[in-house]
Amino acid sequence: MSSASPSPTLAQIQASVDAWISQWDEGYFSPLSNLARLTEEVGELAREVNHSHGDKPKKACERTGSIGEELADILFVVATLANSLDIDLSEEFAKTMAKYDLRDAERWTKAT
Amino acid sequence: MSSASPSPTLAQIQASVDAWISQWDEGYFSPLSNLARLTEEVGELAREVNHSHGDKPKKACERTGSIGEELADILFVVATLANSLDIDLSEEFAKTMAKYDLRDAERWTKAT
Amino acid sequence: MSSASPSPTLAQIQASVDAWISQWDEGYFSPLSNLARLTEEVGELAREVNHSHGDKPKKACERTGSIGEELADILFVVATLANSLDIDLSEEFAKTMAKYDLRDAERWTKAT
Amino acid sequence: MSSASPSPTLAQIQASVDAWISQWDEGYFSPLSNLARLTEEVGELAREVNHSHGDKPKKACERTGSIGEELADILFVVATLANSLDIDLSEEFAKTMAKYDLRDAERWTKAT
Repeated sequence: MSSASPSPTLAQIQASVDAWISQWDEGYFSPLSNLARLTEEVGELAREVNHSHGDKPKKACERTGSIGEELADILFVVATLANSLDIDLSEEFAKTMAKYDLRDAERWTKAT
Repeated sequence: MSSASPSPTLAQIQASVDAWISQWDEGYFSPLSNLARLTEEVGELAREVNHSHGDKPKKACERTGSIGEELADILFVVATLANSLDIDLSEEFAKTMAKYDLRDAERWTKAT
Repeated sequence: MSSASPSPTLAQIQASVDAWISQWDEGYFSPLSNLARLTEEVGELAREVNHSHGDKPKKACERTGSIGEELADILFVVATLANSLDIDLSEEFAKTMAKYDLRDAERWTKAT
Repeated sequence: MSSASPSPTLAQIQASVDAWISQWDEGYFSPLSNLARLTEEVGELAREVNHSHGDKPKKACERTGSIGEELADILFVVATLANSLDIDLSEEFAKTMAKYDLRDAERWTKAT
């Protein structure tokens, strides 16, 4: 997967989101409110995935969306929630990759 | 937010996930199955957020988790779903930041 | 909570949903597709709850909805998924009430 | 679908949930906290559906659950959220059935 535009780091994404939110007086939502927003975005992704890869026909009046767009919206809310709780996503992602290596080592069949 | 470990780019995250999944014969799940996995991870995040910031007491037998860990698990599934559909998250995130700038410009009160 | 209209039983709800779906040649969606639909409906509920009880302002162009409407849509999808897998919700709900009685007996403070 | 046990009405379900919650001093959670709980339960359903009907293998240590059990847990939270906001699910479900009749009349192919 190659991209014309340079790829942002997780730290840059968290900084961009913070810069964006700091523009506004309201600041960060509460954790439960950000979680609800994440649930809403995952619901929009579900609609798109079901439309493209599931059994659900789309109503004519529904706006054209895209799976990529919904995934990016989810990234945005993940970064927002992380920022609001002072969580370093880079560090957490490194831990997750380490965890997956260990935890799932026996679950699948190694490709040869 | 500063991090000791270097921050991965979205492209590096997508490449790491792809390297991890390519180890296994089963390969990528179907889009609907990856979506179900994302729903499961968001549910685990909801439990953690509700425990720390909501009204729900945690049962003694529930494993200790953390919001950061659940957010990283969500990033992992987002990257998996993106890979399986050949979506470039860097490009999509750039579009989302542009969209937010335009769409929400009037919704909040500009900080002065 | 009293209602002017008679209250349907879970069995009647499952029968109504079945009658509705049996009108159409397509029949029931796959379990993963119905799950995606449930995720979508829960996302719509999240938007309404966040709007009425959270921190998120609603965009002017978003359609007027209601929490009650979204809850009923969720009931509809729950009944659909149950029907498609030949699950008797009445029986399952009876088991859940029994489980809650046992499981949570120690978690909260008994009202006196 | 026939059931040995009598099927509860939605009004009875709302009354049972209210009786159960009224036992405890804490009373109803806030709407955002109940929404988070619903998100958690839908996540548990996603795990079960993915295990039985998707691509995801289940870890040996995960507790045995069932799709029916998770659907009933969702009904419980839906009734809880409805009660806490004084919503009559019977009335809302009647409106939903009416809406579905109208809205989707043209989307599928009528069985003959």
